Amino acid sequence: MSVLRELTAEIADIVTDPHILLAYQRDQAALAEAQTPLALVRARGVTDVVTTLRLASAHQIPVVTRGAGSGLAGGANAVDGCIILATTAMDRIVAIDEVQRTATVQPGVLGGDLAVAAAKHGLWYPPDPASKAFSTIGGNIATNAGGGCCLKYGVTGDHIAALTAVLASGEVIRTGGTPLKNVAGLDLTRLLVGSEGTLAVIVEAVLRLRPPPHPAATLAAFFDTVEAAGAAITAIGQVGDPSLMELMDRTTIQAVEQATRMGLDTEAGALLIVQSDSSSAANDIDAYAAACIEARDIAQTTDPAEGEAFLSARRQALPALERHGTTLLDDVAVPKLAIPAMIGQIQSIASRHQVTIGTFGHAGDGNLHPTIVFQQDQRQAAMTAFHDIVQAALHLGGTITGEHGVGILKTRYLTDMLGSAERALLGRIKAAFDPRNILNPGKAI
Amino acid sequence: MSVLRELTAEIADIVTDPHILLAYQRDQAALAEAQTPLALVRARGVTDVVTTLRLASAHQIPVVTRGAGSGLAGGANAVDGCIILATTAMDRIVAIDEVQRTATVQPGVLGGDLAVAAAKHGLWYPPDPASKAFSTIGGNIATNAGGGCCLKYGVTGDHIAALTAVLASGEVIRTGGTPLKNVAGLDLTRLLVGSEGTLAVIVEAVLRLRPPPHPAATLAAFFDTVEAAGAAITAIGQVGDPSLMELMDRTTIQAVEQATRMGLDTEAGALLIVQSDSSSAANDIDAYAAACIEARDIAQTTDPAEGEAFLSARRQALPALERHGTTLLDDVAVPKLAIPAMIGQIQSIASRHQVTIGTFGHAGDGNLHPTIVFQQDQRQAAMTAFHDIVQAALHLGGTITGEHGVGILKTRYLTDMLGSAERALLGRIKAAFDPRNILNPGKAI
Repeated sequence: MSVLRELTAEIADIVTDPHILLAYQRDQAALAEAQTPLALVRARGVTDVVTTLRLASAHQIPVVTRGAGSGLAGGANAVDGCIILATTAMDRIVAIDEVQRTATVQPGVLGGDLAVAAAKHGLWYPPDPASKAFSTIGGNIATNAGGGCCLKYGVTGDHIAALTAVLASGEVIRTGGTPLKNVAGLDLTRLLVGSEGTLAVIVEAVLRLRPPPHPAATLAAFFDTVEAAGAAITAIGQVGDPSLMELMDRTTIQAVEQATRMGLDTEAGALLIVQSDSSSAANDIDAYAAACIEARDIAQTTDPAEGEAFLSARRQALPALERHGTTLLDDVAVPKLAIPAMIGQIQSIASRHQVTIGTFGHAGDGNLHPTIVFQQDQRQAAMTAFHDIVQAALHLGGTITGEHGVGILKTRYLTDMLGSAERALLGRIKAAFDPRNILNPGKAI
Repeated sequence: MSVLRELTAEIADIVTDPHILLAYQRDQAALAEAQTPLALVRARGVTDVVTTLRLASAHQIPVVTRGAGSGLAGGANAVDGCIILATTAMDRIVAIDEVQRTATVQPGVLGGDLAVAAAKHGLWYPPDPASKAFSTIGGNIATNAGGGCCLKYGVTGDHIAALTAVLASGEVIRTGGTPLKNVAGLDLTRLLVGSEGTLAVIVEAVLRLRPPPHPAATLAAFFDTVEAAGAAITAIGQVGDPSLMELMDRTTIQAVEQATRMGLDTEAGALLIVQSDSSSAANDIDAYAAACIEARDIAQTTDPAEGEAFLSARRQALPALERHGTTLLDDVAVPKLAIPAMIGQIQSIASRHQVTIGTFGHAGDGNLHPTIVFQQDQRQAAMTAFHDIVQAALHLGGTITGEHGVGILKTRYLTDMLGSAERALLGRIKAAFDPRNILNPGKAI
C-alpha cells in the first residue's frame, strides 16, 4: 500500500493538490532552492504527527516540518517527494501557571497570541524575533530564534523548560521539566532547540515566563562613523545592562529616511538605538548617553511611546531596503569589538560586487543582518556577496548564523564553522535520533 | 605492549602506587561503591588527555575523569581496571576578556581562584555551588553544578560559552563560541554540560562573566510550620526576584543551634533566609518581609556582614547534622508549591525507618537536600530512606537530582525519571560520542 493511501486512511487533513502544496513549499529565504513535495499533512494533534512519522519511516519518505514558514534560511523548504508536516493547526495554549511561571503550548501557537495570554496573568515571554507576531513558537524553538532583547534576556533556548517531541520512529519523548535545576540525564531539551526539524518534531513546549520589565527608556545616537558607534557599543556595555542595542549603517539610514521622511540624519555613518528596562531606566539612559563620547547627535526619552517611535526607524530597515530591489538578508554574529571591522568589510564587498548592502542588526550581541539589495540580473553577484560576508564573519571569529539558522542556505559553511570532527559528530547524533535520515534531510547539520 | 607501558612511555605523571590510587578512588558520596583502578594519570595538558584516551580506546580500558573529587553522587568513583584521569593539574586561567566578559580556563581551575581573578577585572562568575572554594570548574561543568544563586542567575550551564573537549577516540572538538547568538549546528556545549564524564573530557572552557551584583540585603524568617514557610516562598516569588532563598526544617535548625548556640528559634518549624542583590535591595527585602504573612519572627538587614551571619546558619546545616552520625545527603528538586508536601513525606520516611533526616536546601528553585543521619548499624535503613525520598520526589513531579548528578547513586532511577524511549536515546547519543563505552562506563546515563 502506498504511503499516501495509508496516510489518507489515518489522517483527516492531508492535501495533495499541487496548488495548495505550492503555498507550503518554501519559507521566506530568497534564493534558496525548494523542491516538490508529495503531500501536506496539517496535523491536528500528536496522533497525526506520530502516524505521519511512523508511516514515513516505514516507507523511508522524507518529512519536512514547518510552522508559519517565516524562516529565513530555507529550513522549511520542501525536498523532492517529501511530506510537509505543518504544525500550525496545533495552536492551543494548554496552560499558564502563575506560580511556576510557565506556559504550556502547542507548537503552532503564535508569539503574539502567547504574549496576550501571558499578559493576562501579569507575565511575559521575553524572546522577541522580529517575526514574533506571526511566527510560531515551534518554529522559534526549532531555529532557537533570537531578537532584540537577547543581550539581556537570552535567546529562545534560555526560556524552554521542557519539550514533548516525536522521534522519526513515531516514539514520543519528553525532555526537561519545570524545576530550574535538573541534572538527570543529558540535556535533550537544548539539543532539540535549534535542531531545525532534523532530530524530532516538537509537539508541546513548556516555556518559562517572567514578570514584565519596567517601561523602557530609549536613546538614539548618530555617529559620523561606524567606528565611533563601535566605541559607544563597547562603552555602554561597560556601564550597564541595556535591554536593547540596535545599529544601522549609513546605507540603511538613508533608505529608511527616503521611505519614511522621519527626519533621520542622512549624513551620519551610523545610528545606535539603545534601551534600558530596569527600575532605574532613566538613569541608565543618562549613563549610556555619556558613554556615546563621539556622537554627533543624541536624543533620549523615558516616554515609551516616543521610544517606540525612535525604534520604528530600525523596524523600517528591511522594508525600506526592499523598496530598492530584491533583498537577500544575511545573518552573522561577530565579537562586539569586531563590529566596525565587519561593517567595513561588508562595504568593501558591496563595492567589489557592485550591489547595495545595508547593514543593521543587534549590536549588543554582535548579530548583524547585512542585506544585499540587487536587481534581477545581479543574482550571481548577490550570491557571491553573501558568500563573502559569511567568510568575513568567520575570519573575524564570528558565526555563520546568529539567529536565522543554517537551513539549506548555509550547510556549505558548516564544516568551516565547526570543524570536521565536530561535523562528523553531529552526523552521528543525528543518526541516534533518526537512523533512516527522514527528518529534514540535507538541512541544518 | 600493555597500556600501562605505553602510557608510561608518553606521559610524565602516571601513578600505579596503590596507596596513592586509594586517594583518587572515590568522591565524597557516602555509600557509593568504588572499585579498583589500574592507574592514575595526572594530566598536565591536552596532549596527556589525548594520549590517555587514544591508548585507552585502543586497549578498551575504561577512563574515569575527575577534578577535586568533591562530587556527591559517586560520578568520579573508580571502576575496576580503569584509568583515573585527573585534570586538577590543568589549573591555568588562560585569559580574562573584559569587553567580551569571558574567562578562558583549564578544567582544574578552582572556583575560588576564578572568583579572585575575575574580581581583579571588576567581573563575577555567578555559579556558587557550596563547594565553590575547592571544587574545579571542570567538575562543575561535568555535573552542571547548582548552588544558591541559581533561582536568579541560573545553573553552571547558563554561563558556559564554549568548550574544548577530547572524544574517546582522542579527537579534539570545540563547541560553542563567544557570540551570545550562534545557531550553527547542534548545541554540543549544553550536551557536554552535566554529562558527568561520559561523553568527552573537557580540557578548556570559556565562561561568561558579568559585573558583580549590588551588596545583598537579607531577611531571616522563622515559621511555625513548613506549610507557612511554603506560603511565604510562593508569595516572595510573586513580588520579586530574590537572589537567594534558602530553607531549613526544624531538625536542621535544632542541629545547627546545638552546634553553634547562635540563638536560633528551636521551636520553629522552618527558617527561611532570603536575599536580594538588586539596586533596590533594601526595598525588596521590605516587600519580602511583608510577604511572610505567617512568620513568627523576622530579622532583616542591609548590612552584608550581618546578612552573612544570618546565612551562616544555613552554611552550618550539613556540618551540624554530621555531628550526629554518618550522613547520606540526598538531592531532589520539586515544583515550589510541592516543597511542604515533600518535607512532610520526608518526615514520614524518617519516622518509618527510624533515622534522623534534616532537610535544608534552595527553596527558591525547589532543590532540597534531605540529609539522612544514621549510625553504623543503620546503613540499610538509610539506603531505604534515600530510596523512598527519591520516589517521593518523582511522585510530586520533581527530579531525582537537582544539582549533584546521577553518578552511580541514582542510575537505577533514571528510567523511572526519563522514560524508556528517552533512556534508550541517551544510550544512542552516548554511542555517537564513545562507541567503545570507555568513558565513565555505568555512570550517569
